[in-house]
Amino acid sequence: MKRTENLTPFIVMDIVKRASAIEDCIHFEVGQPDISPSSGVLDSMRSAVDAGQFPYTESLGILPLREKISEFYQKHYGVDVDPSRIMLTVGTSGAFLIAYSVLLDLGERLAFTDPGYPCYKNYSYVLGIDPVMVPVDAKTEYQMTPELLQQYDNIKGVQISSPSNPTGNIYEKSNLERLIKHCGDNNISFISDEIYHGLTYGDKRENTALEFSDDVIVINGFSKYFCMPGARLGWMIMPEKLVRSAEIVMQNLFISAPTISQLGCVSAFDYEFLADYRDEYEKRRDYLYNELKNIFKIDVLPEGAFYIWADMSEYSDDCYAFAMELLEKAHVAVTPGVDFGVNNTKKYIRFAYTRNIEHMKIGVERIKEYLKNRG
Amino acid sequence: MKRTENLTPFIVMDIVKRASAIEDCIHFEVGQPDISPSSGVLDSMRSAVDAGQFPYTESLGILPLREKISEFYQKHYGVDVDPSRIMLTVGTSGAFLIAYSVLLDLGERLAFTDPGYPCYKNYSYVLGIDPVMVPVDAKTEYQMTPELLQQYDNIKGVQISSPSNPTGNIYEKSNLERLIKHCGDNNISFISDEIYHGLTYGDKRENTALEFSDDVIVINGFSKYFCMPGARLGWMIMPEKLVRSAEIVMQNLFISAPTISQLGCVSAFDYEFLADYRDEYEKRRDYLYNELKNIFKIDVLPEGAFYIWADMSEYSDDCYAFAMELLEKAHVAVTPGVDFGVNNTKKYIRFAYTRNIEHMKIGVERIKEYLKNRG
Repeated sequence: MKRTENLTPFIVMDIVKRASAIEDCIHFEVGQPDISPSSGVLDSMRSAVDAGQFPYTESLGILPLREKISEFYQKHYGVDVDPSRIMLTVGTSGAFLIAYSVLLDLGERLAFTDPGYPCYKNYSYVLGIDPVMVPVDAKTEYQMTPELLQQYDNIKGVQISSPSNPTGNIYEKSNLERLIKHCGDNNISFISDEIYHGLTYGDKRENTALEFSDDVIVINGFSKYFCMPGARLGWMIMPEKLVRSAEIVMQNLFISAPTISQLGCVSAFDYEFLADYRDEYEKRRDYLYNELKNIFKIDVLPEGAFYIWADMSEYSDDCYAFAMELLEKAHVAVTPGVDFGVNNTKKYIRFAYTRNIEHMKIGVERIKEYLKNRG
Repeated sequence: MKRTENLTPFIVMDIVKRASAIEDCIHFEVGQPDISPSSGVLDSMRSAVDAGQFPYTESLGILPLREKISEFYQKHYGVDVDPSRIMLTVGTSGAFLIAYSVLLDLGERLAFTDPGYPCYKNYSYVLGIDPVMVPVDAKTEYQMTPELLQQYDNIKGVQISSPSNPTGNIYEKSNLERLIKHCGDNNISFISDEIYHGLTYGDKRENTALEFSDDVIVINGFSKYFCMPGARLGWMIMPEKLVRSAEIVMQNLFISAPTISQLGCVSAFDYEFLADYRDEYEKRRDYLYNELKNIFKIDVLPEGAFYIWADMSEYSDDCYAFAMELLEKAHVAVTPGVDFGVNNTKKYIRFAYTRNIEHMKIGVERIKEYLKNRG
């Protein structure tokens, strides 16, 4: 079958499965927070369950939550987003499927960075879109740039993520602005994956694509910053002219997003809780970065999300074998770089710092010990 | 854009939106039960929320629920289904997207009945599959048959639903068996939508496709019989040989199904609760059928699901206009037949009997009154 022939397993999900069977495993593999959402969210979900709130919602999602999201854009970035331009989706995954369906026809070309989030290319294969993986490295801090993009013909869409998975880099404001302008000038649709927004450390802060244009699609959700990956709730902000076709795709592909999640997330914008959570993750980043830089080569300082992209090539020329070794022999789960593309990714493994420092300390000690004895 | 050009709005979702803005509206439009799930489900969901269960699950879904589903197939149909062949999906919608992606390549032909569930064709358009709508009518009780199928070339897959939406008919056991054998003999993938299983009335009972072959895909979920449309949780049973590729598509397209829904639905197999619910719906079917047959022409006795497919052509030649009239002037929401295909559907409207008899009585009186005065 041509469609699934090119599809790659989402390796991290396979690692998760194997790691969950190892009792004393240390987890650096999957990108999901270990912190529960705020108590307000839990209260709202309990009330929704008590009230038997199990119907579908309208396909765009419940208005009170779309209004909260609109407020969030005003507070967090100072940009105006009318709730009518916001649609609630089944995770960000569901938002990508809809955005790609609406923007790109069969055989059209969508560009994104390699390394990058592995599912971008796989959504493309499933939807019959031609994925164009643009190699990036430390020279541009793993960012897509207009210059890189110009090396390819017939690009109809660009997908970026900032802070990025797997490298944790944040797009420079000036580069983001230039890139969006370049796309606008060349009739290229621009899709901004902002799922790690809020999780940025040190002095650098993230910009939403909406600061530079309303003619972009912004995708975000409740899985990372809001600590609810299992809620499977995302959102998509789009230009007015795309709302109706996106709604039609949503009606047909999903009907609506999970109702209890929607009702619970109305209480998710607890800014004090979110600030504390960010602070905790900054400490974790600092701890893990300072440890790992003595063991591996790290090209760029990870400024956001909760990942460190570590060059392990002095230990092995095959990151998959190396990750399996660490998992099976040291009981430390990491994600092999090849999950994120083909551009030099064999040299890398990705660490997620989504567990507390105590847990990570055990993992770091095990890795050191294992590499010492391995010789 | 070619991809979305052919896509039709899921009209019922538009009607739902409009109807929700009419305060005293009577609801015959959307196919979702008004009954809350069993108390066991609510308890399990509350516990899951209390325990902060918000991580992703593994992509196939949690094993305890897949084991419960396996037991259900043993109890309800007497067929053996190993839990390893069951995957939990984001509603049945998510299951169709995965099944079609795995079975059908770009440009390949998938057949289903017209009238039928509107999203089958729209999944196809989004995925670049060529949908073949096979006209059916009262002559075959709205069932697909091997004879009908043979009139088309190059069919690679067949999608059926029984009990069916919008007509409520149940496939005859002998026809279902013949159809599955025909597909097996001709290398045609067979996909059985069994979402309305359990909701069957009178003497006739439904058969799962798995009674006749393991080389089929069966799709079901918790939205109808288990009263949780908003949980967005479905399942897919497949032959062993397809499990890995379906899992890879699931990992990439959805990561995993909603976690709180999965944990709650472990308690959904409360057979006493389900029997009572079925009995209540049989009473509703009897009430509404007996009323509507005096107002409209009804081709076939609806034997399952919770729909009545009513021929309103003596009142209008445009079901959409007629449905809008009923909605705006009589405050009664029904779904226009054109939502379900192009084969003679302009003559029909669909009634869902998902509200209690008291509610429906008001609606029936309003319709009678309205039609009397309309002249």
